[in-house]
Amino acid sequence: MELNKYIRDVQDFPKKGILFKDISPLLANGKVLRFVIDKMVELSKEADIIIGPDARGFLFGTPVAAMLQKPFIMVRKPNKLPGEVISMEYNLEYGTNKLEVQKGMIKEGQKAIIIDDVLATGGTTKAIIKLVESQGAKVEKVVLLMELENLKGRDMLSPYKVESLIKI
Amino acid sequence: MELNKYIRDVQDFPKKGILFKDISPLLANGKVLRFVIDKMVELSKEADIIIGPDARGFLFGTPVAAMLQKPFIMVRKPNKLPGEVISMEYNLEYGTNKLEVQKGMIKEGQKAIIIDDVLATGGTTKAIIKLVESQGAKVEKVVLLMELENLKGRDMLSPYKVESLIKI
Repeated sequence: MELNKYIRDVQDFPKKGILFKDISPLLANGKVLRFVIDKMVELSKEADIIIGPDARGFLFGTPVAAMLQKPFIMVRKPNKLPGEVISMEYNLEYGTNKLEVQKGMIKEGQKAIIIDDVLATGGTTKAIIKLVESQGAKVEKVVLLMELENLKGRDMLSPYKVESLIKI
Repeated sequence: MELNKYIRDVQDFPKKGILFKDISPLLANGKVLRFVIDKMVELSKEADIIIGPDARGFLFGTPVAAMLQKPFIMVRKPNKLPGEVISMEYNLEYGTNKLEVQKGMIKEGQKAIIIDDVLATGGTTKAIIKLVESQGAKVEKVVLLMELENLKGRDMLSPYKVESLIKI
């Protein structure tokens, strides 16, 4: 299936000069959505846990976890998760960002697969890998709907295994 | 299945005096997550489109849409969706809030089912119903993981049909 057809280019979003890759048409086609989830399920069979970042990682993470009957664990922006959390700060082009996971959710020795919508420079994904592995789990693979190849996120994440369904 | 067991109480989150109902333990149990999605699928069979609000509605909306092979349409906070959007402003206890959907995603005459995690006072859900119906669709039902019965959100949404898997 030619998945590229279901990604829409939007000029100047979220700011001038950026060409945004909009996944909404793909989500809005039930057959295509199912095809994507089935492919991600195939790629995620060896996982003990599925990790999904807020918010668009939620779109693909829970369907895969539900189909495989595996735990789904949320990674969120600060102050979104209740109770005790583990935080990971990381650098952006300008300033820093922070991600959190709840304490005790990820267990030593678990094989984790991170599922998200887009791989750009890889900075956020790298921070999520560090966060997950700080809890003693091992990240087996990163599964993405889409990879923006010119940004070389794959190199940034090396030697971690990266699987993407759409290469743009 | 006794789903209540997988909801964790967290005191004073997001602020002092609030008892937060945390769905993380439910998501982190693969069998329970699958059970919940299967139940939501049963309740959503008549939908032409599935509507899911940012961010926790994404957790339950796409699995249901993928299993039924139906379109999934995101409702998001302002400035998150690219391209032309339709906005709906609504009142909170203090101040106002705004939700958006992309123009052209919802079509006249479609039967829509809204899927979300929690029904509290119903204010946000009511705004989503208005937003969806402003596009000529008909909201057939609201399907929720959890309903906080003492807040009477069900009455607020009447005469719309409300189905929740957990009543607290």
